[in-house]
Amino acid sequence: MTIKAGVVGAAGFAGIEAVRLILGHPEFELAAATSNELAGKRISDVYPNFHGVTEIEFSAHEDAPLESCDVVFLAVPHTAAMAQAPALVEKGVAVIDLSADFRLKDPEVYEQWYNVPHTATDLLEQAAFGLPELFRDGLEQLAEMRKSGAGVLVGCAGCYPTATSLAAAPALRAGLAGAGPIVADAVSGVSGAGKKATERTHFCFADENVEAYGVASHRHTPEIEQILDIPNRLVFTPHLAPLDRGLLSTVTIPLGEHMPTQSELDQLYCDFYRDDALVSVLTGGVQPKTASVAGTCRAHVAVVLNEHARVIVATCAIDNVGKGAAGQAVQCANIVFGLPETCGLGAVAIPA
Amino acid sequence: MTIKAGVVGAAGFAGIEAVRLILGHPEFELAAATSNELAGKRISDVYPNFHGVTEIEFSAHEDAPLESCDVVFLAVPHTAAMAQAPALVEKGVAVIDLSADFRLKDPEVYEQWYNVPHTATDLLEQAAFGLPELFRDGLEQLAEMRKSGAGVLVGCAGCYPTATSLAAAPALRAGLAGAGPIVADAVSGVSGAGKKATERTHFCFADENVEAYGVASHRHTPEIEQILDIPNRLVFTPHLAPLDRGLLSTVTIPLGEHMPTQSELDQLYCDFYRDDALVSVLTGGVQPKTASVAGTCRAHVAVVLNEHARVIVATCAIDNVGKGAAGQAVQCANIVFGLPETCGLGAVAIPA
Amino acid sequence: MTIKAGVVGAAGFAGIEAVRLILGHPEFELAAATSNELAGKRISDVYPNFHGVTEIEFSAHEDAPLESCDVVFLAVPHTAAMAQAPALVEKGVAVIDLSADFRLKDPEVYEQWYNVPHTATDLLEQAAFGLPELFRDGLEQLAEMRKSGAGVLVGCAGCYPTATSLAAAPALRAGLAGAGPIVADAVSGVSGAGKKATERTHFCFADENVEAYGVASHRHTPEIEQILDIPNRLVFTPHLAPLDRGLLSTVTIPLGEHMPTQSELDQLYCDFYRDDALVSVLTGGVQPKTASVAGTCRAHVAVVLNEHARVIVATCAIDNVGKGAAGQAVQCANIVFGLPETCGLGAVAIPA
Amino acid sequence: MTIKAGVVGAAGFAGIEAVRLILGHPEFELAAATSNELAGKRISDVYPNFHGVTEIEFSAHEDAPLESCDVVFLAVPHTAAMAQAPALVEKGVAVIDLSADFRLKDPEVYEQWYNVPHTATDLLEQAAFGLPELFRDGLEQLAEMRKSGAGVLVGCAGCYPTATSLAAAPALRAGLAGAGPIVADAVSGVSGAGKKATERTHFCFADENVEAYGVASHRHTPEIEQILDIPNRLVFTPHLAPLDRGLLSTVTIPLGEHMPTQSELDQLYCDFYRDDALVSVLTGGVQPKTASVAGTCRAHVAVVLNEHARVIVATCAIDNVGKGAAGQAVQCANIVFGLPETCGLGAVAIPA
Repeated sequence: MTIKAGVVGAAGFAGIEAVRLILGHPEFELAAATSNELAGKRISDVYPNFHGVTEIEFSAHEDAPLESCDVVFLAVPHTAAMAQAPALVEKGVAVIDLSADFRLKDPEVYEQWYNVPHTATDLLEQAAFGLPELFRDGLEQLAEMRKSGAGVLVGCAGCYPTATSLAAAPALRAGLAGAGPIVADAVSGVSGAGKKATERTHFCFADENVEAYGVASHRHTPEIEQILDIPNRLVFTPHLAPLDRGLLSTVTIPLGEHMPTQSELDQLYCDFYRDDALVSVLTGGVQPKTASVAGTCRAHVAVVLNEHARVIVATCAIDNVGKGAAGQAVQCANIVFGLPETCGLGAVAIPA
Repeated sequence: MTIKAGVVGAAGFAGIEAVRLILGHPEFELAAATSNELAGKRISDVYPNFHGVTEIEFSAHEDAPLESCDVVFLAVPHTAAMAQAPALVEKGVAVIDLSADFRLKDPEVYEQWYNVPHTATDLLEQAAFGLPELFRDGLEQLAEMRKSGAGVLVGCAGCYPTATSLAAAPALRAGLAGAGPIVADAVSGVSGAGKKATERTHFCFADENVEAYGVASHRHTPEIEQILDIPNRLVFTPHLAPLDRGLLSTVTIPLGEHMPTQSELDQLYCDFYRDDALVSVLTGGVQPKTASVAGTCRAHVAVVLNEHARVIVATCAIDNVGKGAAGQAVQCANIVFGLPETCGLGAVAIPA
Repeated sequence: MTIKAGVVGAAGFAGIEAVRLILGHPEFELAAATSNELAGKRISDVYPNFHGVTEIEFSAHEDAPLESCDVVFLAVPHTAAMAQAPALVEKGVAVIDLSADFRLKDPEVYEQWYNVPHTATDLLEQAAFGLPELFRDGLEQLAEMRKSGAGVLVGCAGCYPTATSLAAAPALRAGLAGAGPIVADAVSGVSGAGKKATERTHFCFADENVEAYGVASHRHTPEIEQILDIPNRLVFTPHLAPLDRGLLSTVTIPLGEHMPTQSELDQLYCDFYRDDALVSVLTGGVQPKTASVAGTCRAHVAVVLNEHARVIVATCAIDNVGKGAAGQAVQCANIVFGLPETCGLGAVAIPA
Repeated sequence: MTIKAGVVGAAGFAGIEAVRLILGHPEFELAAATSNELAGKRISDVYPNFHGVTEIEFSAHEDAPLESCDVVFLAVPHTAAMAQAPALVEKGVAVIDLSADFRLKDPEVYEQWYNVPHTATDLLEQAAFGLPELFRDGLEQLAEMRKSGAGVLVGCAGCYPTATSLAAAPALRAGLAGAGPIVADAVSGVSGAGKKATERTHFCFADENVEAYGVASHRHTPEIEQILDIPNRLVFTPHLAPLDRGLLSTVTIPLGEHMPTQSELDQLYCDFYRDDALVSVLTGGVQPKTASVAGTCRAHVAVVLNEHARVIVATCAIDNVGKGAAGQAVQCANIVFGLPETCGLGAVAIPA
């Protein structure tokens, strides 16, 4: 079986990573990589890591054979995705959306945080949430639908929501949390700020610098609250640090009446992710390092009991462009097409 | 007036920064820079930035004329400071200790976190706490004592406590905090891990990596709780990021009954630091950047109201070796000697 | 066919990269990864990128089943390799040596630069030189020998020699060089300095720093002169820059009587590497970037005519641990075992 | 004496560094900092390192009291400087130009490399060359002229020419060079690429990357050849490395008939720079590090004899924005105003 795959918005960081993963995937074949801005240029002339790897050119969106693809990855800004997805799904394409358009189940919440009305609410209801370790059932239902040739839609989780939720979900689903705010302070590499050259992404401003941004206002807040079912309880503060790829989320969860032991917590987390090949739980006081998962679709998670202040501190490291975006999109597509979940995602980070 | 200054442990990162600041200080004169390991080597042969600046050599501790110094900076590990300070104070020296030995007021708390008994508890009672913006009175009292020639002792605040407390103190002292944990997630540059070459400080392991460490166990926890008077309420999680100098602390404080406006918070913070030349409060949504204070003794602070989760998020950026160690030590010494607090500390970070 | 592979010295940067490549190789199976220092520890406890990938432990050298391996990669310091290789070759193992012991054909030159006598000169004569694009014939002869079960030996090229020679060989073999020194100024990432924690590899000293080292004395000098057949003509100056993986060599070659056009040069280089899947020649003024080959076994090469001073400036970017060490070792092993040269080496660098 | 100083083009990296140096200078007073783009904004709102340091705003060029300044630093692109300098000199201002407009003595060479005619050739003849260690006489002549109130002009050396010439001049002026190309391979931090956000300066493209650029075509080539009097003999290849501030030039000079000893070379260099407070010659095999001079106006130089290939390898590290631009401009201004050359330039790089 060869699955024809298209990438819309292939010139951005998530899009080009999707291209890289598809080119290395044993079952997918790259049928289109669109970029209206770079149409006609060879991918390798824009991203020279592809020299000697592919001769494919970026194509204009309107010229790309997207409707004849089996799967289309939408690596476009929000609003663009909900404009393009309906026609593709209609044509029977499996659409894997990396934008924010199909993540929030409540269109009013979407409108409140993104300041635009949702224009594809019908599709929103059908969309599966793309975070396999926490919502695999929904994706497997799409795989069933897919067998009869139906178009399907996955709204992939954002990078911060992925790491934050993987860190917190085992504890929250086990009912360990007491009342009070849950605090997620996360640090991302600069690739999270996108390909556009701005003052924020200028080497001389990003280098040797750490800063918070989007304090009390980042749009991933309602997404994380939805995933973890913690309405109005999340304090989410993202930070930028001087690295390219990598995202660490540190989540502090107040304990309820039951105070577990460290050993119970470790067991809880290991059990929770026992069947998830791409998530490793680190125990024995080892903390996740973003470098250990850079360039991959893997996640490293650890949990620590802080008896002193009666909280749990859970951490998760991912590659924001890998497990946080393109890698997770491919993982979701694998499930939708009935492939092994890790197909094409076996890469191991360089050791040092 | 020329004030003879000695630095004990001058070869470490805090010690050599003290040397650099003393060499550029208009009133201090470097009388001794000790390092038993490097005794006899020129400073510039070890730290080549001093080529063309000074010909001074490191001296062995026992050979250094410390007792004839006016001020001695102890940039030594904990326990070493409490072993050396008493004799110097006895001889009338102003001792500025950068270690942890004279920070915690309760020797039992010290013993609990550092696993050694405190051996200079008498001196502990006399020590002023070295964080001028929050405890200037104590330092000014030493200045009075100093006029009569008495030996005095300052126990300088640690790097994380400095940034965390500068961020949180205005809100906490104003009584804005409600019940529940106060969460400080802080990110430090690698210089915070010290000069010793280890796997943690190896470029190939630190580069492109972010990780938490000392989760639920970092020794700065009781120090911050003491400064802010929040016993058993602090969740402190430090992180390492790939930069040399710089520390950002992000502090989340649950609000009590009163919900201030953003404007009130800004005003509160601006008023609080109005007379502090080395602390700038950033308003209008601007967040502190560690790069803006690198190489200096300055601190940048901002505060944001998060109505959504009813918390305040306060941030502070410092240079962990500057305001977080050697710079603050010099600032304290300035006060003790009746000099303008910013004397010799006028450096401005490079713009980009 | 499954080829049992052992890695001796698996805990160093080249060794662990060999481990990573073997684990991802479709025909190789990791049979042993030795480290006397770390024997008994799981690889993933030392290099956490292997969590979820392998449960294998490092073994002590003496306990490892090296003689029953089909191929053994020696990622050990010089002198250790020539001590271990003979017995393995004797037992019919294909030995791929990453050290300097079997690179220099003249044992006197070896002794002159490494200050020890060569103790396996017989084997030295049989060793093929491991830089396939320039010496493929020798490796293919080993493949023939291998068919009859003979032990064979490859002495893989060093990192600087690989990049420098790939840059210069097409011009030199075409006879374009005139008289006078050939200058190779090369820049390496810090992984080239090895895993040992030293002042040189300390983040705070390596970060934000560029410096030359080994000026006029680096041991790769005679190796490059041998490869390119330019006795006593090479000025080789290596530099360290603040990146993990990556090596760029910039080679300036004085022209002889014939002044080629830029177009002729481009054609010459493209023709030279036409059949080499892992080397890409960049034309049209594009220069190689180390980031474009990081984490891979690829090389990017460009050549520029400098009419002004009548020289050629040729550049080559590689990953010093990939094409410069472990990747090239696997490439050589592939040839020796009759596999496609790029087998298991298809990785593409992350796009940004 | 207070010297009123203006900076034109104050928002760029060289301009804002000039602002920083002027604000810390004991004799200069910042009278104007122009930026048409940012006019009306506080400097500290654009470069937050100035919070708590100055309240000054950028002013539009046409509103700035430049003609009443004693000294004006032109930190503008080439062509803009030659458009603005004549009127200011006419008004009696000391103009310190950081652009390329008044560096090349031959207007035809200027036109050839910059593709525009020189429009201020009269002034070009009067301009002193701003590289004090090599051309102090010309600057001291301006100091004489200045005493009578005349407007004067300095064309400051570029960053690469400064480092390359400081490395090579002692050997070349001593007549040690033989025939053949002189090769300067230099590595610069990303600040050398300017403040404009481009793909080249994007963190994700610059990070973990080294590459050559401007091969055989960089405009600093004729400037270096002019300074060192080596017409058509220079092969200059600049490179970009992932650091903010710092520039290292490695210069390979073929020896003539006389082969000096290493000790003679060291002596030659030490003697040459004996009276230059801002240049340190490193001996004993120590190589210059860019980190040792970052943020300063200092230069570190070393020279190594390579007997093997009969060449000298001379290296020089500077801060490209400091000694390579704004620092050197202030150094030149100090001379022109009869101040100690190092006035306001005493900063020492952070030790690590």
